[in-house]
Amino acid sequence: MSARRLRRGERMLAIAHRLFREPHTVFSLGTFTDGLDAAKSTISEDIAVLRRVCEMFELGRIDTLAGVSGGVRYTPHCTPGQIRALAERLAERLRDPARILPGGFLYTTDLLSLPGLVERLGDTFATFFEDRRPDVVLSMEVKGIPLALMTARAFNVPLVTIRRGERVTEGSSVTVNYVSGSSRTVQSMTLPLRAVPAGARALFIDDFLRGGGTARGVYDLMRECRAEVVGVGVLIEATQPQEKLVEQYVSVLAFDGVDESHGTVRIEPSRWALGQPVEALHP
Amino acid sequence: MSARRLRRGERMLAIAHRLFREPHTVFSLGTFTDGLDAAKSTISEDIAVLRRVCEMFELGRIDTLAGVSGGVRYTPHCTPGQIRALAERLAERLRDPARILPGGFLYTTDLLSLPGLVERLGDTFATFFEDRRPDVVLSMEVKGIPLALMTARAFNVPLVTIRRGERVTEGSSVTVNYVSGSSRTVQSMTLPLRAVPAGARALFIDDFLRGGGTARGVYDLMRECRAEVVGVGVLIEATQPQEKLVEQYVSVLAFDGVDESHGTVRIEPSRWALGQPVEALHP
Repeated sequence: MSARRLRRGERMLAIAHRLFREPHTVFSLGTFTDGLDAAKSTISEDIAVLRRVCEMFELGRIDTLAGVSGGVRYTPHCTPGQIRALAERLAERLRDPARILPGGFLYTTDLLSLPGLVERLGDTFATFFEDRRPDVVLSMEVKGIPLALMTARAFNVPLVTIRRGERVTEGSSVTVNYVSGSSRTVQSMTLPLRAVPAGARALFIDDFLRGGGTARGVYDLMRECRAEVVGVGVLIEATQPQEKLVEQYVSVLAFDGVDESHGTVRIEPSRWALGQPVEALHP
Repeated sequence: MSARRLRRGERMLAIAHRLFREPHTVFSLGTFTDGLDAAKSTISEDIAVLRRVCEMFELGRIDTLAGVSGGVRYTPHCTPGQIRALAERLAERLRDPARILPGGFLYTTDLLSLPGLVERLGDTFATFFEDRRPDVVLSMEVKGIPLALMTARAFNVPLVTIRRGERVTEGSSVTVNYVSGSSRTVQSMTLPLRAVPAGARALFIDDFLRGGGTARGVYDLMRECRAEVVGVGVLIEATQPQEKLVEQYVSVLAFDGVDESHGTVRIEPSRWALGQPVEALHP
């Protein structure tokens, strides 16, 4: 490091980089006084400016925590306007008739493959479930993994991927059966036993929810692990069937089917993306 | 935005946030003069300071490009020291005898599930393959997906996931057979035809390479798509067999097997992680 003292902007950037890399983590001011060779009061002021900039440009939230275990923490946070705009842009792209697949399905894989977009969606889920404090984010192979990983990144917790079927490749595992909402067949899902510790708070993130059979299975799987599902978030929910096998979930988009003869895709931002608050968790 | 003019540190942070979110993208200075209500010369100075801070704290590289298509670009970049330290820390954690699985395999899933760690590994692959300018990053389901997604994020290009077997769920697809290095059986891998355009430059990222059968299959698959493999990067390579089915690849760690009776795991940083330059691509 250079001999001269750093300027405010330089220190702020170094602090911001560290906080953004490890969201939801409390850093003591000492972390920065040592690394940046500055007094505590200086670092405090840096953080105050940083907080203001994050507010101004809607980059997320900086909190300072007082007391012995105090320090500073960054929380990715999207404003209602940002979430709505993201959902509207996505719905717009998904209305492209070229996305209609045989059977009335929608081609979404390309969008779920764009890291920048998926990162924004991860921040969106982290905003929806901000108060749930998950210990792990669960995904179901394969298509939901990027979304779930970016949500795990926003919460800075591990991603745990549930495998379809009963493949056991990593020591002891737990398997449950579930009824797939779309195919109405009994399938199974498996998790290495050591992946989710007892008592863990698990957030399940997936790309699509039709009947909710998969989500139902995840509840059963977590019961076997003695862990708790604290939320279910999906990118797209199908409006049909109306009755879902899970009571509580949150979606970004609502898909009302396609009209193959006219080449119309009916998809809109969900009520949560339009501003309805995410309900508190049932006990 | 507030009425008063922004200070340097405030503008720098806004610029940095935008650049970090979209690496490998050239932004014109006009993007920032408008958004931040500042003169071009002011923004230029902001960027010069930003570049210095990124150098000082080893946060990656900021380049300014002159000319009509000029502007500023952020490239995630790890220093040799950062890569070596990351590989050493990882090897250390993988030497834990509790990770030994039946058959001499290693339990790595938990590490591949930590978003912060995987993000650093993605930056590492992006550094190894900096000059390859991939258009897509390829992954093979399931375990390699987080690594590949974070590499795609560092390059700001789409992730494309190859499916095992011949499942066709998303329109027309292309399938090739390959010999799995570990099981010596003929398997197949499938890709939606529209996922990789003809002429694309593809970088394949995976968690493990033993014989190189999977990587060989990816070469064949890309040939069918008339795309080009510009690199193969794996987290862990097995030192045995020495002869691989692919000539060029880059690893972070080299795994020399386990001694189940003594509970010893032989794993070390690879020669590239220790500083050997990544070879230029054969024509």
